[in-house]
Amino acid sequence: MVAEILAVGTELLIGQITNTNAQYLSKRLNDVGVSVYYHSVVGDNPVRLKESLKTALSRADIVISTGGMGPTQDDLTKETVAETMGLKLVLHPEIYQDIKAFFERVNRKMMDSNAKQAYIPENSIIVPNNNGTAPGCIIEKDGKIVILLPGPPKEMIPMFEETVFPYFEKMTGQTIGSKMLKVFGVGESEMEMKIIDLIKAQSNPTIAPYVNMGEVVVRVTARCRDANEAESMICPVIDKIRERLGTDLYSINGETMEEVVVRLIIEKNISISVAESCTGGMLAAKLVNVPGVSKVFEKGFITYSNSAKIDMLGVSPDTLETYGAVSRETAIEMVNCLIKKTGTRAGISITGMAGPNNMTDPVPCSTALSHIPDKPAGLVYIAVYLDGKTECIELKLNGDRERVRHVACLNALNLLRKMMI
Amino acid sequence: MVAEILAVGTELLIGQITNTNAQYLSKRLNDVGVSVYYHSVVGDNPVRLKESLKTALSRADIVISTGGMGPTQDDLTKETVAETMGLKLVLHPEIYQDIKAFFERVNRKMMDSNAKQAYIPENSIIVPNNNGTAPGCIIEKDGKIVILLPGPPKEMIPMFEETVFPYFEKMTGQTIGSKMLKVFGVGESEMEMKIIDLIKAQSNPTIAPYVNMGEVVVRVTARCRDANEAESMICPVIDKIRERLGTDLYSINGETMEEVVVRLIIEKNISISVAESCTGGMLAAKLVNVPGVSKVFEKGFITYSNSAKIDMLGVSPDTLETYGAVSRETAIEMVNCLIKKTGTRAGISITGMAGPNNMTDPVPCSTALSHIPDKPAGLVYIAVYLDGKTECIELKLNGDRERVRHVACLNALNLLRKMMI
Repeated sequence: MVAEILAVGTELLIGQITNTNAQYLSKRLNDVGVSVYYHSVVGDNPVRLKESLKTALSRADIVISTGGMGPTQDDLTKETVAETMGLKLVLHPEIYQDIKAFFERVNRKMMDSNAKQAYIPENSIIVPNNNGTAPGCIIEKDGKIVILLPGPPKEMIPMFEETVFPYFEKMTGQTIGSKMLKVFGVGESEMEMKIIDLIKAQSNPTIAPYVNMGEVVVRVTARCRDANEAESMICPVIDKIRERLGTDLYSINGETMEEVVVRLIIEKNISISVAESCTGGMLAAKLVNVPGVSKVFEKGFITYSNSAKIDMLGVSPDTLETYGAVSRETAIEMVNCLIKKTGTRAGISITGMAGPNNMTDPVPCSTALSHIPDKPAGLVYIAVYLDGKTECIELKLNGDRERVRHVACLNALNLLRKMMI
Repeated sequence: MVAEILAVGTELLIGQITNTNAQYLSKRLNDVGVSVYYHSVVGDNPVRLKESLKTALSRADIVISTGGMGPTQDDLTKETVAETMGLKLVLHPEIYQDIKAFFERVNRKMMDSNAKQAYIPENSIIVPNNNGTAPGCIIEKDGKIVILLPGPPKEMIPMFEETVFPYFEKMTGQTIGSKMLKVFGVGESEMEMKIIDLIKAQSNPTIAPYVNMGEVVVRVTARCRDANEAESMICPVIDKIRERLGTDLYSINGETMEEVVVRLIIEKNISISVAESCTGGMLAAKLVNVPGVSKVFEKGFITYSNSAKIDMLGVSPDTLETYGAVSRETAIEMVNCLIKKTGTRAGISITGMAGPNNMTDPVPCSTALSHIPDKPAGLVYIAVYLDGKTECIELKLNGDRERVRHVACLNALNLLRKMMI
């Protein structure tokens, strides 16, 4: 079965929006065993749309169009497709009622033009739209399948998932299941070395590693008949990967590092506080963005300047003077002072040079002290305290300020996670 | 002049990547007065590519292809286009040398297969590639223009900007200039009301407002002959918009709110500290992400719990007991305590309910106090202190946790900005 995706909309041709629908549909059609050979994009122009539809029908079994289903005069997909395929448009009173109800629900006035959205090509299967007024449809005629969907992804995607994907699953007897494994503490090539034999030996499920903002993600994907079969195919593969990666594998459900860590500290009822220099609040903001964290997260200190480290935490000026603000000694003293101040069971401190380069925006102290050599951008020290024990790591990170900070936060959370398990 | 954009690559048809190139090129072609009528995407298949190219040539004056220019056997765009158009591929020794030099520069071994990238269709204009090994080319034949560019945007975009865009500018005698105006403190519809007559009266430059994460952006775009003309056409329009919007217009160069505020506080040498409850470090992290901020940013307190507000800042338990943590009184006391502790010239405090709903993750105190009614999610109080003066605002925001926090931070920075000017 070969499909073509035909997007309709002048806004695509003037570069106002990207055709993300084509990517989404391509991926999902491949998932269900349908090959996509072409994407096309055409404007709100009935003559060119008709030509494009004819071309698509001549080279594909299935044509899925997105866009041009709105209430305005520009929206001509349904009319043009019906005319091209020799079908009448038929009023569906129940759709008319749905549209009326939709407008009442969102407290907006229904326009006369919306009535045209209740007309659907005869003998087609309705694709309901719970997030807008334009229903879609599946037309089966002369051995071809034409599916019309609206353009806005927040309408199109649920419609595809709820009605169109199951329609194809039934037709092809195939579907797909996948799990996203998150790995931290091992580089992509090192991890690939550890599981390369598994990757090569597997054809179904497949094992695909990739890197995303300092983390390695492994997607395990099974081609199967249903969700139960997917589960039973994927689980043994995850077990094998876990044997190789141990606790570096931190989630099998695509959770973020902060979600995993907050879940653990809530489970164990561990109170936590943080002291941040170069990350400047980013670590706290990551924690605070996980619902439920207020049960355990108490206090955060952003000690960006040297005087802040001294006044707010009580770090000794001697330590800063002797070793510099970006040092193992300062990181450890920051976390110990933090715990003394807050009395929490866990604490994290971060100090480092975020860049962009060694000179532009250094932590003030380290340049003022001429006897301490310049610290390179990307040098970060993290200390984590948990129930009486302190560990400290040194990182040499690359990338821009934002990335250095982000990866520093991930490392800090990961160190705490490892100390908890 | 009508163009068609033809993307080549199986990775697009299996949904691995989005065709962002088509959006980019469409926008830029429109900028230079070339209309785009179709986008097409085809896989790495010479038969289907040939058909697609023929179709494109039959309906457009200009065809721009992206992708399929790599060194592997799959990469067939150049060969297929040359064959279809009846052109020979000719070895360019200077390109061969460039490719060799590129590999030496990035310290990688040049493969034999890379040599094929030095072959270009005869009589075409070379489009140099400074970020990769695949040069592009402009072919002019039989009244048609075919332009071949590589797929990776980091190669394609500079090649288009450096060689192809100027080629079209010369051909059409048109170009475009634009400025991005950032507005805060006025809703989209309110702002539109204030400048609707300007929007309607202008056809060149055009004035296009849109909303992005709580901010209103106005793009002023001039169709013109060159950059100087653009400047002289756009400036008077900006002046008129400024007359209407006053200080709500905070940047005419697309700067972020934090960039503008950090620039102002550095210029005026105003030291600053922050105390955050519901934003949990996000405000500090935004400030700290602007290079140069270490000159003025000193200390940040993340007082997420009630005890943190009391212990770290010295907020009175009475205030929290009487008014709740999410109240005007608490916000003002937080900032006043903050200034007492840090002695900075400016200070910001934020306290609020980030959501996701009223019950799941409340600031601990406000539920414990049964005499204080439940505060709705999205209710935020911000107090800003500057040189002896304190102002406080109440916000009722909607959206998820992340959005509520982001918009709260923008409002806090904007209040400080207004107090500085």
